Amino acid sequence: MKESGQKHGALSPCAACKLLRRRCAQDCVFAPYFPADEPQKFASVHKVFGASNVNKMLQELPEHQRRDAVSSMVYEANARVRDPVYGCVGAISSLQQQINSLQTQLAVAQAEVVHMRMREFTSSSNTGAMDMAVNQDNMGESLWSC
Amino acid sequence: MKESGQKHGALSPCAACKLLRRRCAQDCVFAPYFPADEPQKFASVHKVFGASNVNKMLQELPEHQRRDAVSSMVYEANARVRDPVYGCVGAISSLQQQINSLQTQLAVAQAEVVHMRMREFTSSSNTGAMDMAVNQDNMGESLWSC
Repeated sequence: MKESGQKHGALSPCAACKLLRRRCAQDCVFAPYFPADEPQKFASVHKVFGASNVNKMLQELPEHQRRDAVSSMVYEANARVRDPVYGCVGAISSLQQQINSLQTQLAVAQAEVVHMRMREFTSSSNTGAMDMAVNQDNMGESLWSC
Repeated sequence: MKESGQKHGALSPCAACKLLRRRCAQDCVFAPYFPADEPQKFASVHKVFGASNVNKMLQELPEHQRRDAVSSMVYEANARVRDPVYGCVGAISSLQQQINSLQTQLAVAQAEVVHMRMREFTSSSNTGAMDMAVNQDNMGESLWSC
């Protein structure tokens, strides 16, 4: 246990080794990501993925990617604990619904912009035509007045 | 093997029992969801969650929810196999970015609608004011002409 204490700055083993009741070695693959004071993180990933799968998945990744991998596994595991049927696929499905709804709202708003621009263009064309008609009248008058 | 064949309508064990090299019993919890002709489905969930965790998760659910649970686990497992660092949390993050972008586009379009409505309202108010002015002139004239 001393090595773990010396390495991780605490006298206790990491949360994973504590739960698995095993010796927390200096090179423990879990220790950097599962500190003793956050036991719930490892409990969730262990319940959903199993400690040996988490170990294997981490070993297969280069060290600089392991923290992100642990974060995403903890997120997924918590989602599965909260919702054992859909897990985080439930979140994906709800986000996709939100996207569909936003796309519909955006299409409506953009169609309204196009519609209003057309109306604005038509009305300004009409005003232009009227202005031209007025100018032609004036020109007619000025021609006749010569 | 005979029971499995009799129950699942095939002579072979289900994909899970085949991979785990075990007897596929009549009440095999995997058999209804992992048919022999789709071995990849079970291979993925076994690699990511582990057969015993999948078994436990299914046993804890009522039968009518197990098919959805298997589908979501297969989805999650495939995502983790494709992207060992982020798994389906990568999809969640990309959907959230899409939502942010759609929300921005929607805000822009809605602001443009409001802006155009204001302009339309102002211009129709001005026309109204001009009409009123013209009417007042006419009224003035008609008053004077009395």
